[in-house]
Amino acid sequence: MPAEADPAPFGRVAVLGLGLMGGSLARALSGLAEGPRVVGWSPEASERSAALASGAVAEAAPDAEGAAEGADLVVLATPLAAACALAGRVAGILADDALVTDLVSLKRPVFEAARAAGLAERWVGAHPMCGGAEAGFAAGRADLYEGARVWVAPGLSPGLAPEPSVVRVEAFWRSVGGKPARIDADAHDRLMVEVSHVPQLTANALARLLAEADVAEDSLGPGGRDMTRLAASTPTMWRDLLAHAPDTLPRRLRALAAHLGTLAEMVEARDADGLDAWMAGTRAWRSGL
Amino acid sequence: MPAEADPAPFGRVAVLGLGLMGGSLARALSGLAEGPRVVGWSPEASERSAALASGAVAEAAPDAEGAAEGADLVVLATPLAAACALAGRVAGILADDALVTDLVSLKRPVFEAARAAGLAERWVGAHPMCGGAEAGFAAGRADLYEGARVWVAPGLSPGLAPEPSVVRVEAFWRSVGGKPARIDADAHDRLMVEVSHVPQLTANALARLLAEADVAEDSLGPGGRDMTRLAASTPTMWRDLLAHAPDTLPRRLRALAAHLGTLAEMVEARDADGLDAWMAGTRAWRSGL
Repeated sequence: MPAEADPAPFGRVAVLGLGLMGGSLARALSGLAEGPRVVGWSPEASERSAALASGAVAEAAPDAEGAAEGADLVVLATPLAAACALAGRVAGILADDALVTDLVSLKRPVFEAARAAGLAERWVGAHPMCGGAEAGFAAGRADLYEGARVWVAPGLSPGLAPEPSVVRVEAFWRSVGGKPARIDADAHDRLMVEVSHVPQLTANALARLLAEADVAEDSLGPGGRDMTRLAASTPTMWRDLLAHAPDTLPRRLRALAAHLGTLAEMVEARDADGLDAWMAGTRAWRSGL
Repeated sequence: MPAEADPAPFGRVAVLGLGLMGGSLARALSGLAEGPRVVGWSPEASERSAALASGAVAEAAPDAEGAAEGADLVVLATPLAAACALAGRVAGILADDALVTDLVSLKRPVFEAARAAGLAERWVGAHPMCGGAEAGFAAGRADLYEGARVWVAPGLSPGLAPEPSVVRVEAFWRSVGGKPARIDADAHDRLMVEVSHVPQLTANALARLLAEADVAEDSLGPGGRDMTRLAASTPTMWRDLLAHAPDTLPRRLRALAAHLGTLAEMVEARDADGLDAWMAGTRAWRSGL
C-alpha cells in the first residue's frame, strides 16, 4: 500500500454494550490523550452508572438510539444476536458519514444484518482476539486490546465498505493498542471454527468427561486447568455463535474425535515411536517452528 | 490425626536431576532459613555447573551415587525411566535411615522399581502438580512449589513406608511451599489419566487438527492458546508416561471422542438448548460450584 496521510480520527464514538469488551474499549478510548468523546449505552442501568462514575464514558445514554445519535463511529460491543438487532435500531439515526464496527466473533451473520439494515457499505467489522473469563463492566481494563490481533473485515461482496473507511476503522483499533489484520469475512469465520469453536467445544467435552468421573476441579494441575478453562465460558454468548457457526464445524469436531481414536489405538498398542512422532509434530507447530 | 511433634527435618538432601523440577526444588531448599545442605547431580555437566554457580546447591556431585552418599533424603527429580534406573544405582549406597522421594507423575511403576531395588519401605512417592512449558535448570524458580498440591503416596501394599516416614516427607514438601495430600498409588495413577494424560493427548490431537488445516500458531486467541499449550510438551517425558499409563487411558480417550461426536450432532441439529445445557453443566463444574 502507498504511504498515505493518517485517516481522520473519530470525534464522537458510541459504544453500545459496556461489558468486558465494550467497557474495556470505553476505558481505553477515554484514556487517550486526544481521544474521542465516548458515549456509552448498556441495557443494564448498573453498567451505565458504573461506566459514567469511572470516567470510562463521558455520557451514558438511556437507549441505544440516543447513544448513536451524532456519533461518527458506532461500536457494537455485544453478542451476535444483540449486534444484529442493534443494526436495525441505529440504522435510521446514523449521520450519512458515520461508520459502524462490531466485535462479534463471526462476521457473515453480522454483515447479513448490516445489509438488511442498509448499512453494508458503512460497516467495517472487527474481531479482537482478546477477552477474559469474567464478564461485565467491572471485569474490564483499559489495556485489554494492547497487542491483540484485531481481524478487520470490510463486509460481504457486493457492498464492501470503501477502502478509506476500512483504513479509518483500522486506525481506530490501532489507537487502543490493537494490531489490525485484514481478512475476508468467510475466511475469518472458517478460521474461527479452527481456533475458537472447536477448542471451546473440546474444553466442554473434556470438562464433562472429568465431571462424570467425579474429578474435583481442584484436582487439576496447570495443564488440566488450561485445558478446561474455556469450559467456564458463558453459554449465552455461545448460543448465538453455535447457531450461526459455519457448516464445517461438525466435520471438524468429528475429525478431532478421529484423532483421539488414533491416539487411543497407539496408546493401546504401546506404540511409543508413533506417539513420539505425533507429539514432536505438534510441539513443532505449537512452538511456531 | 492427633497433634504431634514436628518430624525431624532432613539435614542433607540429594537432588538427582537439576531440570525445571529438581532445579527449582534445589533453589527453594537452599533459600530456606534453616534448610538442609543440598547436594545436586545432573547427567548434564552444564546443569551441575549452573546449579553450583547460582547457589542452588552447596555441592554438585559428578555422579548420582556420590550425591546420594551420606544424604538422609534422596529426591529423584527425573522422568520415569531415569527414576527407576536411579533407584537401583543408589540402593546400595543409602544409609539405613535415609529416605527416598520422587516427583514422577505415575506412582505404580516407580514403586515397582523401588520394590525391585529393595527400597520399598524407605520410599515415599510424591507428585507435585506444578511445572512449566520450559524445561531445564535455567527455567526453574524458587517458588515453583508455592501453593502446589503435592500428592504423597506411601508405596504399594505390602511394603508401604511407615507412617513416621510419610509424615516426614510431607513436612519436607511443605517446607518448600507445597500442599501435601495423601493418596493411594493406584488411585493417583487413575486420577492422572483424567487430569493429565487425557488433557495432554487432547491438546496434541487438537494441535494436529489445526496444523493440518494450515492454521498458523499466531492466529490463536487466548482460548486457542490455552487449549494447545500442552501440545508443546516434551515428547521424551511423555514417552515413558504413556508406556506405563493405566489401562483406562484408551477407554477414556474414546469416551472423549464420543462426547465430541455428540456435540457435533447437536451443532448439526442446531440444538441450541442441548448445547446450552451441556455448557451450563461444564461451567458449573469448572467454576467449582
